[in-house]
Amino acid sequence: MKKSVGIIGANGYTGSELVRILAFHPNVELKFLYSRSNAGTKISEIYPDLISVCDIVLTNEIEDVDILFLCLPHQESKNWLTENPVGENVLVIDLGNDFRLESVFGQRNFVYGLPEIFKKEIKSGKSIANPGCFATAIQLALLPLAKENLLTDVYTTGITGSTGAGQSLQQTTHFSWRNDNISAYKTLTHQHVDEVLKNLDVINGKKTELHFVPWRGDFVRGIFTSSILKCDLELEKIHGIFKDFYKNAPFVTISENPIDLKQIINTNRCVIHIERNKKTIVVHSALDNLLKGASGQAVQNMNIAMNWTENAGLNLKSIAF
Amino acid sequence: MKKSVGIIGANGYTGSELVRILAFHPNVELKFLYSRSNAGTKISEIYPDLISVCDIVLTNEIEDVDILFLCLPHQESKNWLTENPVGENVLVIDLGNDFRLESVFGQRNFVYGLPEIFKKEIKSGKSIANPGCFATAIQLALLPLAKENLLTDVYTTGITGSTGAGQSLQQTTHFSWRNDNISAYKTLTHQHVDEVLKNLDVINGKKTELHFVPWRGDFVRGIFTSSILKCDLELEKIHGIFKDFYKNAPFVTISENPIDLKQIINTNRCVIHIERNKKTIVVHSALDNLLKGASGQAVQNMNIAMNWTENAGLNLKSIAF
Amino acid sequence: MKKSVGIIGANGYTGSELVRILAFHPNVELKFLYSRSNAGTKISEIYPDLISVCDIVLTNEIEDVDILFLCLPHQESKNWLTENPVGENVLVIDLGNDFRLESVFGQRNFVYGLPEIFKKEIKSGKSIANPGCFATAIQLALLPLAKENLLTDVYTTGITGSTGAGQSLQQTTHFSWRNDNISAYKTLTHQHVDEVLKNLDVINGKKTELHFVPWRGDFVRGIFTSSILKCDLELEKIHGIFKDFYKNAPFVTISENPIDLKQIINTNRCVIHIERNKKTIVVHSALDNLLKGASGQAVQNMNIAMNWTENAGLNLKSIAF
Amino acid sequence: MKKSVGIIGANGYTGSELVRILAFHPNVELKFLYSRSNAGTKISEIYPDLISVCDIVLTNEIEDVDILFLCLPHQESKNWLTENPVGENVLVIDLGNDFRLESVFGQRNFVYGLPEIFKKEIKSGKSIANPGCFATAIQLALLPLAKENLLTDVYTTGITGSTGAGQSLQQTTHFSWRNDNISAYKTLTHQHVDEVLKNLDVINGKKTELHFVPWRGDFVRGIFTSSILKCDLELEKIHGIFKDFYKNAPFVTISENPIDLKQIINTNRCVIHIERNKKTIVVHSALDNLLKGASGQAVQNMNIAMNWTENAGLNLKSIAF
Repeated sequence: MKKSVGIIGANGYTGSELVRILAFHPNVELKFLYSRSNAGTKISEIYPDLISVCDIVLTNEIEDVDILFLCLPHQESKNWLTENPVGENVLVIDLGNDFRLESVFGQRNFVYGLPEIFKKEIKSGKSIANPGCFATAIQLALLPLAKENLLTDVYTTGITGSTGAGQSLQQTTHFSWRNDNISAYKTLTHQHVDEVLKNLDVINGKKTELHFVPWRGDFVRGIFTSSILKCDLELEKIHGIFKDFYKNAPFVTISENPIDLKQIINTNRCVIHIERNKKTIVVHSALDNLLKGASGQAVQNMNIAMNWTENAGLNLKSIAF
Repeated sequence: MKKSVGIIGANGYTGSELVRILAFHPNVELKFLYSRSNAGTKISEIYPDLISVCDIVLTNEIEDVDILFLCLPHQESKNWLTENPVGENVLVIDLGNDFRLESVFGQRNFVYGLPEIFKKEIKSGKSIANPGCFATAIQLALLPLAKENLLTDVYTTGITGSTGAGQSLQQTTHFSWRNDNISAYKTLTHQHVDEVLKNLDVINGKKTELHFVPWRGDFVRGIFTSSILKCDLELEKIHGIFKDFYKNAPFVTISENPIDLKQIINTNRCVIHIERNKKTIVVHSALDNLLKGASGQAVQNMNIAMNWTENAGLNLKSIAF
Repeated sequence: MKKSVGIIGANGYTGSELVRILAFHPNVELKFLYSRSNAGTKISEIYPDLISVCDIVLTNEIEDVDILFLCLPHQESKNWLTENPVGENVLVIDLGNDFRLESVFGQRNFVYGLPEIFKKEIKSGKSIANPGCFATAIQLALLPLAKENLLTDVYTTGITGSTGAGQSLQQTTHFSWRNDNISAYKTLTHQHVDEVLKNLDVINGKKTELHFVPWRGDFVRGIFTSSILKCDLELEKIHGIFKDFYKNAPFVTISENPIDLKQIINTNRCVIHIERNKKTIVVHSALDNLLKGASGQAVQNMNIAMNWTENAGLNLKSIAF
Repeated sequence: MKKSVGIIGANGYTGSELVRILAFHPNVELKFLYSRSNAGTKISEIYPDLISVCDIVLTNEIEDVDILFLCLPHQESKNWLTENPVGENVLVIDLGNDFRLESVFGQRNFVYGLPEIFKKEIKSGKSIANPGCFATAIQLALLPLAKENLLTDVYTTGITGSTGAGQSLQQTTHFSWRNDNISAYKTLTHQHVDEVLKNLDVINGKKTELHFVPWRGDFVRGIFTSSILKCDLELEKIHGIFKDFYKNAPFVTISENPIDLKQIINTNRCVIHIERNKKTIVVHSALDNLLKGASGQAVQNMNIAMNWTENAGLNLKSIAF
């Protein structure tokens, strides 16, 4: 029998992206889509791509479900859970940043939902803190090195599409400004740095520095990062480490050919490519910020926690062009 | 048991798009991907979005299959079929323009594969001529009017993405030229006009003129058309005619709200919106040229001809953003 | 000696575009830039491309000038002129739509500022109503035919960049929505239709219909239009008529080769190309909506009214790529 | 009296961009435009934005001129100069990379044409090696630090528009591939690294490492770079050093506000912005690769060498939007 799902904040980018995936997921049924501001409106009126795919009316009333996704603005999940107690058997997956650094909330202990390192913990828990988009892209690029205690100070530049900034209207998401434009923001101070180092430093066994410069890109979906760091190993050896680390990860591919951003758009995949010159290596990674960087990874986490096939509902046709 | 599929010309845009769909189709198995120029290369090396989704090596040898898709340059399907005889029980779907106007070829009689009018014929045949992309967009916008003998002379402007021009390198597909650019081509002389009128005039019961101005757009996927024509009926009545005509068409939606191109990108759907001022109406239609305008429609035709659910393998997540 | 200029509404798109042109104009000096909402801020803080080009502080006080440009939202120029009387010797150029259809306002009688037909009137007046962007593109495409009384009913599709919608933040100017997207708006009811027919019908000597479908394009600057109409003349003859009509127009070019939008971006030029099939012709036109469609044309009008070289300050390097 | 100019390789991107600038330059006259492959064709047929701006017919014959620009593929300038001896009084400006690292060629000794450090040498010479586009962007970001011997190892990511790849048709400049796409190329091995360090190490007084990762961007014009390095100085002090260094540089602006790429597109300007967190600083720089990164800088060099105003012909209206 299908499991029932509720989405809190269904009218945002990550919420609607969940709807797009779950509408065709074999094991679940969308029971309610919650939105305070748009209650009474069909989700397909807000996102017309959903017409005849999902015409559920948004509601501000909560029903009992097996699985609950929280797609609220950062730091609003806590309040929401406080005001709306959720049964302990409900699987809660939070797409905000509320429980990524501090995992304990009441009776719940949130697992950091990066399946490529915490699959076992995800499988056995009922509370998942879904990672940030840049945090996923950077960690997937560096985890295998950390695992081998090879991580040194890292210099990363990453670029993100406009959906990373959410659906609110801002100067930097105005088409006339952003088209054909590139700019930096939160230089060296992006909030995902802490999220990344929290994991990597433990795994790596020592403190490192991550100097991260995020850029706004003139595209809508996707994240591309290049991380520069020192490494004595031969490229072949590094490849071996990466391939071994990800051998059971269905959504991570180590590519021996150069990668490009569009290669993974509209999929839940992350591709990684490594290059080396003398003692310096560069690890490139690319993913779709709304999928492997948010809603796709949330479904992947749900699949694992529910003991379903990891890629159930996630065999997504890539846009390719 | 799964049916076996071969694709001739798998290394082109429409061929690779078929691979993207069929790799996840529940009823078929890709048996061979034929390419004269790229035999010996993995399809995923040419289209890296396919890495780990489909790593089949392109071949120049043909095997027996149940279903054969021809994705060759226009007017090369005839030669290919002449040189490579295909058993009469094999379902042949041609994505070129070889059999759209002249349907008889040897023992085969090609049905024009627009399911919204020829579903019955598609179901009972073994040879399908898949329609052109603009031809699909314009016909879906005008068919219900033709059915009621309401079609008068039509003035259509349509805009297409760069994939409409194929993968060959040309001045007009050079990024430095095409980005932020708009231009007209084949003004009043586009080859799809004949394809459209061949059907519409018969259904409409009299000859009409279609004045069609195609534009090159600065995007990759999609077709958007606006057709202006005279019509005495009230808008409500016209809506009724359209909704009735498409009531059993799972991939065509009549939208009472304005439509936009991105709404249907990466799906097999076509959305239509009608507006009226005095005695003039405008019918807008939008579809993805590689899906409902090519490979998606080909799979839809296959599903119908094989007596499978019409949308098998075609529940595609829209890109939306 | 240089003439002094004031700009009312300098912080909008057309106002700032005037600043970009006039900062390098040999005959004028920017005396004040008026903005109610941004008084006290440097124009170069709002538009950082102007840093070190024009660092004038926006003001809400008016000074005496020789030339005054009004760059206010539509229908606010009247109020502004009522509240802020302007000396009768001041050349007033209004970029709004206040005086395009009704030309008389107090003592002032506004000339319709399309230099290609009203150069004489512009030269002798002190009040100019600058035409709309689509209105300019469509009229320049049709004027020579109207002059020869050859105009029949016209079917026009036009596409505009996002700057046509102004700088306010709206759903349809959000990057995540507009990128790679096409949509229609104000179908058959765009306000420029009246502006166009007001002139063309008088010149043509009879009433015609203009069926105009405007589209939103996924680019920032520019307008491209294709107008379909019936015409018995041979193409060569039509070419002759157009070339003759524009022989003294420094900013209009009749191209025998196909045209494209980017060809004129960041210039004050309009290019026109005519095609014919049987008795149907299509006239394509392209211009930059902020220049020949707004601020560039306003400067052209100023040059004519001040008896300066028509292209003073308007030898603008095209972006080309 | 105007000086005469010849352009060798006028049909390429940088050659045609020179034509766009020089067509309106007050002190020069275009005497001939040389192109082996397109001799006999009007430059405005190849670049239709030039119609009625410059309709000179390309030639394969050379005439005597005062100033000669070489816009040939890299490493072809040497051959050309060998086969076509040029009088010693002719000012030769090479836009290729032939004389950037090795400056002596026959009697000529090429000055590295970065006016912000070598203005005196440019003024007194007759042979100028115009810098590379990335090399200009990176050097302008780092020069003031090198001048103070503050340069340490640098980690730079830079992104370039498609015109950086020239006008030849390639997979990576195909619109269907490049639109909305990001990718890395020549990771750590870009040829401009040597060009940069050749100057910086001398000025800085010691050897440093430049780890440079270039990215292909999904836009046509422009370069944006972010360079990460260690620096003990306070931000205010660094600002002071930069502002002092560029106090006589009309085309370089140190911005205290964040910068963005479009701010300088279609101008000869470079904007620089510096940020700091603890002991790490990031220097961002942006310029138009075809102007300050190529043809605009070439004209700036010409102006200096000819003892004209440095910005003659270079007061270019920015595209802004």
